[in-house]
Amino acid sequence: MTVSSSTATINGIDLAAVGALAQQLLADPDAPKSSWSARTQWTGAFTSASYAREHRPIVSDEPALLAGTNSAPNPVEYLLAAPGSCLAVGYAASAAARGIELRALEISLAGTIDLRVFLGLAEGHAGYEQIELTTRVDSDADEAALQELHEHVVKTSPVGNTIEHAVELRTRLLSS
Amino acid sequence: MTVSSSTATINGIDLAAVGALAQQLLADPDAPKSSWSARTQWTGAFTSASYAREHRPIVSDEPALLAGTNSAPNPVEYLLAAPGSCLAVGYAASAAARGIELRALEISLAGTIDLRVFLGLAEGHAGYEQIELTTRVDSDADEAALQELHEHVVKTSPVGNTIEHAVELRTRLLSS
Repeated sequence: MTVSSSTATINGIDLAAVGALAQQLLADPDAPKSSWSARTQWTGAFTSASYAREHRPIVSDEPALLAGTNSAPNPVEYLLAAPGSCLAVGYAASAAARGIELRALEISLAGTIDLRVFLGLAEGHAGYEQIELTTRVDSDADEAALQELHEHVVKTSPVGNTIEHAVELRTRLLSS
Repeated sequence: MTVSSSTATINGIDLAAVGALAQQLLADPDAPKSSWSARTQWTGAFTSASYAREHRPIVSDEPALLAGTNSAPNPVEYLLAAPGSCLAVGYAASAAARGIELRALEISLAGTIDLRVFLGLAEGHAGYEQIELTTRVDSDADEAALQELHEHVVKTSPVGNTIEHAVELRTRLLSS
């Protein structure tokens, strides 16, 4: 692989742009944290549309098994897609920073939920108690380098960290 | 509101179908927990497509600010949409069970992330440390009933519980 310093791209990532972002964050240690938001609009029954910036709505529904109309993935599936997509970014970026080229990468995620708690029929943890995550990577890099990459990416994943830590949901209700 | 026992629908929800699901879960206390899965395919640079059952891919990218091509919401936005859509289901279902009709419901979610931790420039929590969530509900139900509904829904939300608890990500890497 030939890398020119002005146009270096690995895994489709512009290393100069990532480097500039890192420099910018290092230059101002008091830089505010990045803020993110979404707005979910209930659209009847178990359907909703969530909006993030200018993007198309993220639509959700429940399967027929859960009395929905199965028009879209359900919320606990989005909760698996979030760490999946976050780790994909992490692998691509951290591999690029290490000079590791990825040919293909796929992440499988799975977990179980006790519907009885959700339906108020039992007490306990209503969510995933653990999530099983398997990454399949196709690369010429050696085993040890890929294992180090994997551990770094899991450790620094914003979505992964949010799931692995106890994070407070500060809720309030406004009614009219 | 006139409710006929065979066709009762509140908030677009078929109460008989939800009741049947509850009866089924109560009848077999050893019923297995429900299993959910997703598969994320890296599609180059910071883009990915996540698949849940037969549904269309959940596409993700990063904004230009983070050296992405901004073709879709990013992973930490999906992580806000997940509790938003989960709570929407919860409000609609639990309100229906209480005979509360909702005219409209919207949930705003926001949080901050320290990009320096993600980029490996600082140690600490790479994810949301807290998520602010505001629900706006339009309903004729009285304030106390809506507050009780709100507290019940937050407490029994599968996605909310996953975020509020420390949940283990059991990861493994397969390389080729």
